[in-house]
Amino acid sequence: GKVDKGADFANYFCTYAFLYHQKEMLSDRVRMDAYYDSIFKNARHFKGKTVLDVGTGSGILAIWSAQAGARKVYAVEATDMATHARALVAGNGMENIVEVIEGSVEDITLPEQVDIIISEWMGYFLVRESMFDSVIYARDKWLKPTGMMYPSHARMWLAPMQTSLGERKIQEYQHAMNDWSRFTQETSDQYGVDMRVLNDPYREEQRKYFLQTSVWNSLHPNQVIGAPALVKEFDCLTATLDETASVRSQFRIPIDSGNAKIAGFAGWFDVHFRGCPSDPADNEVELTTAPSVDDTTHWGQQVFLLHPPISTRNGDILVGELEITRSKQNHRLMDVKIAHALERRGSPPAQPTISNFFIE
Amino acid sequence: GKVDKGADFANYFCTYAFLYHQKEMLSDRVRMDAYYDSIFKNARHFKGKTVLDVGTGSGILAIWSAQAGARKVYAVEATDMATHARALVAGNGMENIVEVIEGSVEDITLPEQVDIIISEWMGYFLVRESMFDSVIYARDKWLKPTGMMYPSHARMWLAPMQTSLGERKIQEYQHAMNDWSRFTQETSDQYGVDMRVLNDPYREEQRKYFLQTSVWNSLHPNQVIGAPALVKEFDCLTATLDETASVRSQFRIPIDSGNAKIAGFAGWFDVHFRGCPSDPADNEVELTTAPSVDDTTHWGQQVFLLHPPISTRNGDILVGELEITRSKQNHRLMDVKIAHALERRGSPPAQPTISNFFIE
Ligand SMILES: Nc1ncnc2c1ncn2[C@@H]1O[C@H](CSCC[C@H](N)C(=O)O)[C@@H](O)[C@H]1O
Ligand SMILES: Nc1ncnc2c1ncn2[C@@H]1O[C@H](CSCC[C@H](N)C(=O)O)[C@@H](O)[C@H]1O
Repeated sequence: GKVDKGADFANYFCTYAFLYHQKEMLSDRVRMDAYYDSIFKNARHFKGKTVLDVGTGSGILAIWSAQAGARKVYAVEATDMATHARALVAGNGMENIVEVIEGSVEDITLPEQVDIIISEWMGYFLVRESMFDSVIYARDKWLKPTGMMYPSHARMWLAPMQTSLGERKIQEYQHAMNDWSRFTQETSDQYGVDMRVLNDPYREEQRKYFLQTSVWNSLHPNQVIGAPALVKEFDCLTATLDETASVRSQFRIPIDSGNAKIAGFAGWFDVHFRGCPSDPADNEVELTTAPSVDDTTHWGQQVFLLHPPISTRNGDILVGELEITRSKQNHRLMDVKIAHALERRGSPPAQPTISNFFIE
Repeated sequence: GKVDKGADFANYFCTYAFLYHQKEMLSDRVRMDAYYDSIFKNARHFKGKTVLDVGTGSGILAIWSAQAGARKVYAVEATDMATHARALVAGNGMENIVEVIEGSVEDITLPEQVDIIISEWMGYFLVRESMFDSVIYARDKWLKPTGMMYPSHARMWLAPMQTSLGERKIQEYQHAMNDWSRFTQETSDQYGVDMRVLNDPYREEQRKYFLQTSVWNSLHPNQVIGAPALVKEFDCLTATLDETASVRSQFRIPIDSGNAKIAGFAGWFDVHFRGCPSDPADNEVELTTAPSVDDTTHWGQQVFLLHPPISTRNGDILVGELEITRSKQNHRLMDVKIAHALERRGSPPAQPTISNFFIE
């Protein structure tokens, strides 16, 4: 479908126009260290080269690229943040190397092809925001055949987990439905209008909100109760728009913890900076958003809660399929379908249960 | 300026597509009682008449109009809520009288002119959301020359007030700026980029957010420390788009409470149901959102905080001017300028101080 640019700006880009929001990303140590190391520990890649920074925001990656020795950096930013990036570039003495261009990377023109595309395009569970599309677009249009991508690879992970979050959500949902009952009674008594014909739509709306919308969480590693399944690996040099438009993957996960309850699934991602096959990184860098005690990120994990949770026994195997597609209303949000069943020693395979979620 | 429809839908209409949000309005007793009474205590106005409900939402006002005896009600709603309104109409046996039409009132066509336009179009401080524009548009296109408006009049009020909210906002602002200092220091130490060139833009952004954006509040009447000034009265039958596009008004308010500090201004509105000159209401109804102990509304009041507050003595007179214009970025939001000075017995008139605010 065609994207309404006005709506896309109102829904998506507007938040990036605030320094406050850029600051949140710039305060994410894990994120910052990974990009910083990827550039400065592989400065050889940047020396004398031309770089395109897709979505430069404050301009940080463009400035680092210049500091690492790039000859020229094109820093493209769709929002007014471009003005601040330009000031930051000048404030750090890089105005002869970094050129800030305000516009969507889809619309702008560069005077030359580039050696490196660098970008921080990752959303929750990697794919939210669909910004990778813009990077792919820029790559196909502006990257030299010999060029490389920073990051070079991206992976999505899914794991079963335990949490008490689901119970809280169920309570909130029940509270909302009780309140609706009270409300319909009052509206009928006081105002002579019977609202009960909207019971089902209201329930559906509240279910979606409380029970089917994935939840941001920063999980402790011991909440993960089975080996994470690799859902998808993108090679940023070759990934296609078809590949990003929908992700489908089967999983088969032995449950480690005895008698644990699977309260849901957690989704996260990592990206890697490996240079390219013909010119690998001197020092590979990984940025992971997996559950961690010390190295938490602003991405956290996306939690998909199961209602009710699944009781497991040691030796059970969780099998299923994950399918992620774009929301029809907003291409930057996702519909997620998880089909899952337990394989239990000595029992016939169970019918899979299908749970539908929304990444909002 | 021309309105981007996609952005307008994303920014404004989308919230109204949730039953949850309609329920909040339907749970506002003061609002509901006023509309209910205005219709049923003046049922004579509705008997056998044709009615247009601009922005029917759940359909409540359309159903009441039908219950009061209207011959035909056109219930226009821009969002998907129209589907639920249609169900509610049928669920209350009114499908032969109420016709729900999905679309902007600016775009749709009716088979006839109507006798009454009813609408609940009021936003914070009356004018936020700019929905009155749509009502005026509908009136000029679809109301019979002899027709009447429900409500018939709307008024805006401004009053000086005391509150400790301003101190909290100042603290939050200072906290944000201290955090920025720490952040620029760390970014420079750890990542070799000097962010201080963005100090001023960041300060401006945070000032706007914490200090210049009006705040929703439900005030106690005794927080008001001078007689409220009537800022504007709209006659809904004759008001023009020019009149709604900007509001400018002078005020002169004796301060009642001895030695109070004026911490800011509070803005609110009331609307009246008086029928029309040739056919006045049998029972006039008023819906007020003034500070109140018992009769609070979801609109509350909009508070414009002064930094620093103004110290007053009994007998001082607060003089000034209020100017409300539309935000350039979003015509449904407002820029507010308040010029104010104290007239003190025996002193020459002071230079006015000008404070700029945003209704977001
Ligand atoms: N198609 C596109 N063209 C240009 N900028 C885009 C874009 N899609 C997203 N962006 C911008 O990309 C940025 C992503 S956030 C990352 C900002 C910065 N590179 C950093 O690492 O700190 C946002 O500022 C957003 O406005
Ligand atoms: N130009 C327009 N055309 C049609 N509907 C509009 C409109 N502008 C706003 N609306 C709708 O008007 C409603 C205002 S809220 C009031 C809802 C309902 N009349 C009630 O009193 O409970 C919203 O549902 C909004 O979507």
